[in-house]
Amino acid sequence: MSYTQVQGGITAPRGFVAGSAYCGIKESNPDRPDIAVIHSPQPTVVAATFTTNRVKAAPVRVSSMHLRGEDVRAIVANSGNANACTGLEGIENAKRMAASVGKALDLKPRQVMVCSTGRIGVQLPIEKMEPVLAEFQERLRPDGSMRAAKAIMTSDSFPKELAVEFEVEGQTVRIGGIAKGAGMIDPNMATMLCFLTTDAVISKPHLQKALSVSVEQSFNRITIDGDMSTNDTVIMLANSLSGHPPLKYGTPAFKLFQNALDCLTRNLARMIVEDGEGVTKFVEVHVNGAASLNDARRAAEAVANSNLVKCAWFGGDPNWGRIMDALGYSGARLREELVDIFYDGVSAVKGGLASKTPFSKLQEVVAEKKFTINIDLHVGKAEHTVYTTDLSVDYVKLNMGE
Amino acid sequence: MSYTQVQGGITAPRGFVAGSAYCGIKESNPDRPDIAVIHSPQPTVVAATFTTNRVKAAPVRVSSMHLRGEDVRAIVANSGNANACTGLEGIENAKRMAASVGKALDLKPRQVMVCSTGRIGVQLPIEKMEPVLAEFQERLRPDGSMRAAKAIMTSDSFPKELAVEFEVEGQTVRIGGIAKGAGMIDPNMATMLCFLTTDAVISKPHLQKALSVSVEQSFNRITIDGDMSTNDTVIMLANSLSGHPPLKYGTPAFKLFQNALDCLTRNLARMIVEDGEGVTKFVEVHVNGAASLNDARRAAEAVANSNLVKCAWFGGDPNWGRIMDALGYSGARLREELVDIFYDGVSAVKGGLASKTPFSKLQEVVAEKKFTINIDLHVGKAEHTVYTTDLSVDYVKLNMGE
Repeated sequence: MSYTQVQGGITAPRGFVAGSAYCGIKESNPDRPDIAVIHSPQPTVVAATFTTNRVKAAPVRVSSMHLRGEDVRAIVANSGNANACTGLEGIENAKRMAASVGKALDLKPRQVMVCSTGRIGVQLPIEKMEPVLAEFQERLRPDGSMRAAKAIMTSDSFPKELAVEFEVEGQTVRIGGIAKGAGMIDPNMATMLCFLTTDAVISKPHLQKALSVSVEQSFNRITIDGDMSTNDTVIMLANSLSGHPPLKYGTPAFKLFQNALDCLTRNLARMIVEDGEGVTKFVEVHVNGAASLNDARRAAEAVANSNLVKCAWFGGDPNWGRIMDALGYSGARLREELVDIFYDGVSAVKGGLASKTPFSKLQEVVAEKKFTINIDLHVGKAEHTVYTTDLSVDYVKLNMGE
Repeated sequence: MSYTQVQGGITAPRGFVAGSAYCGIKESNPDRPDIAVIHSPQPTVVAATFTTNRVKAAPVRVSSMHLRGEDVRAIVANSGNANACTGLEGIENAKRMAASVGKALDLKPRQVMVCSTGRIGVQLPIEKMEPVLAEFQERLRPDGSMRAAKAIMTSDSFPKELAVEFEVEGQTVRIGGIAKGAGMIDPNMATMLCFLTTDAVISKPHLQKALSVSVEQSFNRITIDGDMSTNDTVIMLANSLSGHPPLKYGTPAFKLFQNALDCLTRNLARMIVEDGEGVTKFVEVHVNGAASLNDARRAAEAVANSNLVKCAWFGGDPNWGRIMDALGYSGARLREELVDIFYDGVSAVKGGLASKTPFSKLQEVVAEKKFTINIDLHVGKAEHTVYTTDLSVDYVKLNMGE
């Protein structure tokens, strides 16, 4: 019951090909690749999760429809333009992206999932894109994962890809993934995209179950600034080429698959946080002893999203008073006199009061690039973890626009 | 039915005296006044609203108890130390503050309201404070409002005081107020304190009614960073010296009183926002056409608290895409294709899409130091306004601690 990390990203699993192209969508970076395509020539099942923002980008609307269909075999994603707040023309353009790639790969438009990331409120230069998309077949390679990973970058400073391998009944199974991060450059949104592939044998409902659980414990636990994008999308394709008996929920093999997928998504999520624009610190906020799961989440998110807490971290100031304050307004049920707070295991607050730890000890922890804040509310048994960052001068500079 | 602005702040109404003193609570600024007292030798009725943060400072707990009693005649407030997260010793110290001032003014401790603002998690230097508090009688003046206003400042750049005057049945009535703001300097909380006085004749329940309504449309509508302090407090004293028939809810005289009070609190709230540390822009976010009051509030607050929106404002970038995004995750019911957004009346978004206004026109608005964002959701009739600021490089620098 174990898995190992392997090379190859989304093309590590058998039968997947990927590639990238330049369409000139990014006006400021015309020579950076801006289109990625992932393709399985074999039949697949698909699962996906989308942003819960009520303002949904056109590709999110189109992909949500395509998710309902059978045998999705490709994903096309562009960077440089979010195709959000673009109305019916935007929907039409997202459909044209799917249709062009479909034509190139001999697929129906509904067999292609569509994603976009970048500028909001501007129409896609679809005329420039279609000729490139229509000839994508020749760009797809069985080692093309890194090209695709690079093409979906916006302000990311490094491409993000990972793959893991494990055995099910003597057959090697692989899961691969690429992601783009929460870096932000005007006027981009902090869109998170993640594409996952596997050669596991699994039915569509079981794949969706595994993906939803996995997203919940990874991408749904990261926060840079609390803003949620119009375009956030996670898509997973499974093509059954590993040939083991189908994975069924509740079996040890399914559990192994889930663990491997969770490891992969959690590590991609961490990469996204660490690569956030202007980020100087990576902080894990863990709340336990909460009265309910909802309370644990609220408490952790209030701390992780507090500008005052995050500015203090940026400055290397432990300032647990701001954490107490954020807990207090989080809505989580708590009794001040029961709260314990630890910085990398060092007690800062005991029973709601300053602990006897010398302030310099806490300063040492907050001076680190990575640390963990543990908060025990002592009113219940629920817990929740959020991965977050500091709030830096560079964050403001990078997001202040033109 | 009108009111005029007058000089004198909290000592403008008949019968109130105020003053300040130095106790040396602020280690970094030992020679700045750090204690304010407001006193009515005549009987008063009191009303108050406190922070809804579940972590409440000791003075908030003590003042909440004193609010239930009769004939409160004084307020004592210190800056430099929040007396929050200080346990039973903190409660004891807050009671000692009240008792010392009570002794000086020949009052019972429960006739004194107590407030603190400043550093969290440190015990008050009560031994230093008591001798000063015990001799406060001689420091109180009928023109002492400005002294009190200065003594409650933390990182505020200017003292905040206002007074208005109007007539009820031939008698002159005055309302005065002082406030301290949401400026933040490590490791202070963004505590908001406001003290109000009036010589109107009004019963305790009617005064509480008027104050609650007034706070709702003023201090509850300002946001710098969404963090809510452990110490936020608004207290109002009324001493009946103007001699008109008692103000009763629902009468024209009550309405006049309410309007005057609302004007005063709204202007004090504006001063607080404009004086926020690192603030370069004052922005009014007005949402109308929402499906419910709660939706209107959520939508306005999501926009006003979005770091991405606020960074864009700081940079003079209209970036309505970020506003659409914040509306989308606010939880307010909306249909993207119905949303209109205006910058100082200039259309930026029409039916969810970029309007035909040249981008430079929107840039001109956002280049101003004050502007209004109007958002019409077109799904209902509810509306809400929030007063907020940009998010600047200086905000981060001022809050990054030691």
